[in-house]
Amino acid sequence: MRIALLGGTGDIGQALALRWARDTSHEILVGSRDPERARGKADEYETELASVGVEREVKGFGNEMAADRADVVVLAVPAYHVRDTLASVADRIADADVLVSPAVGMDRDEDGFHYQPPKAGSVTRLVADAAPDGVPVVGAFHNLSADRLANLDVDLDLDTLVVGDDGDAVETVVQLAEGIEGLRALPAGGIANAPEVESMTPLLINLAMENEGMHDVGVQFE
Amino acid sequence: MRIALLGGTGDIGQALALRWARDTSHEILVGSRDPERARGKADEYETELASVGVEREVKGFGNEMAADRADVVVLAVPAYHVRDTLASVADRIADADVLVSPAVGMDRDEDGFHYQPPKAGSVTRLVADAAPDGVPVVGAFHNLSADRLANLDVDLDLDTLVVGDDGDAVETVVQLAEGIEGLRALPAGGIANAPEVESMTPLLINLAMENEGMHDVGVQFE
Repeated sequence: MRIALLGGTGDIGQALALRWARDTSHEILVGSRDPERARGKADEYETELASVGVEREVKGFGNEMAADRADVVVLAVPAYHVRDTLASVADRIADADVLVSPAVGMDRDEDGFHYQPPKAGSVTRLVADAAPDGVPVVGAFHNLSADRLANLDVDLDLDTLVVGDDGDAVETVVQLAEGIEGLRALPAGGIANAPEVESMTPLLINLAMENEGMHDVGVQFE
Repeated sequence: MRIALLGGTGDIGQALALRWARDTSHEILVGSRDPERARGKADEYETELASVGVEREVKGFGNEMAADRADVVVLAVPAYHVRDTLASVADRIADADVLVSPAVGMDRDEDGFHYQPPKAGSVTRLVADAAPDGVPVVGAFHNLSADRLANLDVDLDLDTLVVGDDGDAVETVVQLAEGIEGLRALPAGGIANAPEVESMTPLLINLAMENEGMHDVGVQFE
């Protein structure tokens, strides 16, 4: 498949790009508002992959162009950019198989991080509401440490949770996720269940802050 | 220590009673609104423990009497009974070391279970607001399957999350939790962080509903 990572120059975009490029044969398109920046980062990812013995082409494009060419579009941008980024590519993704939402709304106070969903109830729901008709939306990859994924020396052995209302789209994302070595994808129900999935992200950050040696903590369900 | 499990005739009360009685030397007081029912259940737990070769006394009392005698008081009742149960024992727990809140507010629709905290923001916060002055409140044991704990044939190998604003009380509960074989307790910050901890419970139920073989699913943070 051809996967566009919009905001693919950011932390989680980089992490997914490197893992998918190393572990699968999917074509990886790194998107950015600035096409030059996307191409620069794509070159960096190629160099990083070569350093672990993987010769793979990673392409960089403006977000619109990346979205236009992709089967799967991942909105790998911070929560406060999701709406704008989606609007900027909406007329390019009508024929995408699936739109993937990994972003989480959070705020921080002196106690730690707290789940702060948009008015729609979750970022996944916000994306589903704003997506073009007929493009199924799936929430996934929220609860993964970008630093841990981006370090290709680290074995993952982690779970990620997947929510969506379209069974085929959920299955596509489960397969994509499980293409990454050491990653298991678990369906957690429909988009109505996204708040509980998204709110694990501030929980993981709080655990990282409160516990020695849990800097890049992830989760396994047993 | 002497631990009172208010509502100790229910699922999570039974689970904790059996594990603590088997794995530690803490004295276990089963509380119920109905003292006769508490005594009956305590006898059942003793029989269950004897069946795995553990001769332990488990006592049953009315909630007030159990609370009065305990160092640690666990509000092992459903979320909608927390306020009434606490009110009924408030004048008995002024000298308790710690009041433990494992309850979670949830509702259910056709998609699954959803986190539904009380107006205070979390059940742990509600308990903290209603607790007598000077009695520290700690949230813990939310994300454990009662069925899995109550089955003494099962090795746990699970984590539970602990939130609280009083460091000594948190440490007491961490030690109590880790007295249970195969259970690791992880501090997740102050009571302000309770919503993210409590909302894992509906998430786990949703995972159990959506995935084969995850009937009693728990969590590990790695």
